[in-house]
Amino acid sequence: MKQKREVKVGSVVIGGAAAISVQSMTNTKTDDVKATLNQINDLYQAGADLVRVSVPDEKSLSALWEIVKNSPLPVIADTHYSLDFAIKCVEAGAKKVRVNPGNTKNTGRLDDLVKTCLERGAAIRIGVNSGSLGDEYKDLPKHEALAKCAYDYEKKFYDAGFLDTVLSVKSSDVLTTVRANRMLWEICQSPLHIGLTEAGTYENGVIKSTAALSALLLDGIGNTVRVSLTTPNLTDEIRVARKLLAFLGLRNDVVDVVACPTCARTEIDVAALAEQIERATFGIKKSIKIAVMGCAVNGIGECGDADLGVCGGKQKSLIISRGNILETVQNSDLLPVLMRRVKELIKE
Amino acid sequence: MKQKREVKVGSVVIGGAAAISVQSMTNTKTDDVKATLNQINDLYQAGADLVRVSVPDEKSLSALWEIVKNSPLPVIADTHYSLDFAIKCVEAGAKKVRVNPGNTKNTGRLDDLVKTCLERGAAIRIGVNSGSLGDEYKDLPKHEALAKCAYDYEKKFYDAGFLDTVLSVKSSDVLTTVRANRMLWEICQSPLHIGLTEAGTYENGVIKSTAALSALLLDGIGNTVRVSLTTPNLTDEIRVARKLLAFLGLRNDVVDVVACPTCARTEIDVAALAEQIERATFGIKKSIKIAVMGCAVNGIGECGDADLGVCGGKQKSLIISRGNILETVQNSDLLPVLMRRVKELIKE
Repeated sequence: MKQKREVKVGSVVIGGAAAISVQSMTNTKTDDVKATLNQINDLYQAGADLVRVSVPDEKSLSALWEIVKNSPLPVIADTHYSLDFAIKCVEAGAKKVRVNPGNTKNTGRLDDLVKTCLERGAAIRIGVNSGSLGDEYKDLPKHEALAKCAYDYEKKFYDAGFLDTVLSVKSSDVLTTVRANRMLWEICQSPLHIGLTEAGTYENGVIKSTAALSALLLDGIGNTVRVSLTTPNLTDEIRVARKLLAFLGLRNDVVDVVACPTCARTEIDVAALAEQIERATFGIKKSIKIAVMGCAVNGIGECGDADLGVCGGKQKSLIISRGNILETVQNSDLLPVLMRRVKELIKE
Repeated sequence: MKQKREVKVGSVVIGGAAAISVQSMTNTKTDDVKATLNQINDLYQAGADLVRVSVPDEKSLSALWEIVKNSPLPVIADTHYSLDFAIKCVEAGAKKVRVNPGNTKNTGRLDDLVKTCLERGAAIRIGVNSGSLGDEYKDLPKHEALAKCAYDYEKKFYDAGFLDTVLSVKSSDVLTTVRANRMLWEICQSPLHIGLTEAGTYENGVIKSTAALSALLLDGIGNTVRVSLTTPNLTDEIRVARKLLAFLGLRNDVVDVVACPTCARTEIDVAALAEQIERATFGIKKSIKIAVMGCAVNGIGECGDADLGVCGGKQKSLIISRGNILETVQNSDLLPVLMRRVKELIKE
């Protein structure tokens, strides 16, 4: 695994050996300061490390000052078209500003942006999207165009004496995203923000984002992640991202509920019980493994490495911890007994 | 990419250059023939290629004869503990029988099982689970134990003159599953059935299964897949598996609805519209890409490679096809207009 340069975004380090951070983007009207700060607080509570806010106009820019001042998370400003705007966002207190090389034309002001970022200690994300690539890249294969564009822009900032860049290359296609990031990782020095763009509705988005990010993260590629989902509840993005990192062994602050897929041998309502336990334990930021098994065939074995397990029986079920049977309980008492034991585990 | 031996399961080929097949497992009581066949029909309608049925006792075995006769899909019998039972399942007409080396002791009857399978043209899945590994593998790292156990059992069948084996090594852990399959793929000759076991509730299960399967499939590993989910609706497994394969470019019979994650620029209810379109188009087994974008900033560009796209505006939105603006419609008319255009696309 190649380590990338460390870039500081407020109190969060991206790159080097730093833990992979999780971020999302508000979808309120940014000039509605109250609504935007409420959403930022929700993301913070859900476990986000960073938050991005779109700044499309002067009204949003005025609001940004107030948002930055009251946000519990470092704020990244998302800008397009104009580096003037990016400069003003940094002046407003954004700890990182996203610029899109594909649609930002007045590159003459790049030196001014660099100067302002250096003065204020702000970082820059060079965010390339397959939907807004410059004409000079149009003839390359899509993944190569994305990687080359990010690399060329990284060099512009490097030549201007600026090293605090984070790169991203996003497409709505899994294969293009994986290939572009693999290629960029080989040639860039900056840390990578990885994610799919326009991933889609909840189910499509979870599948696409997980498919692309998992392949990259398992290869050691990526320093900060965003799972983009089009859902009514923005915190879905944070929950899914945190779970993915935990399941890949890259985070240890998530409760993992495993459950058998049920079959003809199943004696209890595994799906309902597992869902109830998952919902009751999601807020707990500890690494605890809980297994819900419908029968004893695979159950006792599969519970072997779980901190807490249940193997369903006809009227009574076994409660197991790391291979040891603790007690036999009536099926109707399973949920309260399990939750009592979870609480005991947390106290330990 | 290394090709594996071709194994026939009824009309479905696993291995070689065959398309990656999708399977699931019924969770009815197998002796309830009607309920089991209903579930098999649901899975068939949802796009499953194969179905597995647990056969834990004599009652289920009797039912199996009837199930096999009426199933629209090749039936795989799932057995444990006894090769006698596996033999009887093949006699009942199962096209493949799953045996678990970890808990099957009377290997003396392996020659009889081979003989019956050869006579009936049935295949064997050697299904190793991390929860039921034999003592001789307990000291190895988990992924190595899984791979070695499957490999050793493959050799037993090979030495007995039987080549129609499919192997699987499953764990509830993403990293163990990925490592075990990567190792096994290097050393085995049989095609691989890939999947996570006890993946968990819907969300955990989708994330874990996608994370593991995506990493493997992107490396060319795997010939048939199961996404195990603990949900009330078994067809979720088939839908998620088919989507994953489509998003990785391994299937071209799924409608792909992409949508922007929405931000301060969004002018329409992207999540609701995308969900509605996704629900209305899931049954269509064609490769059509539909993009729902909240604004024109990335929208028009991102719609560039979509068969049908919408870019939201304040009161009216643009309908786009492969980069060309087709018409401008009132936002209240978006869904009917899009669905009319989808129907036109299907006719083409």
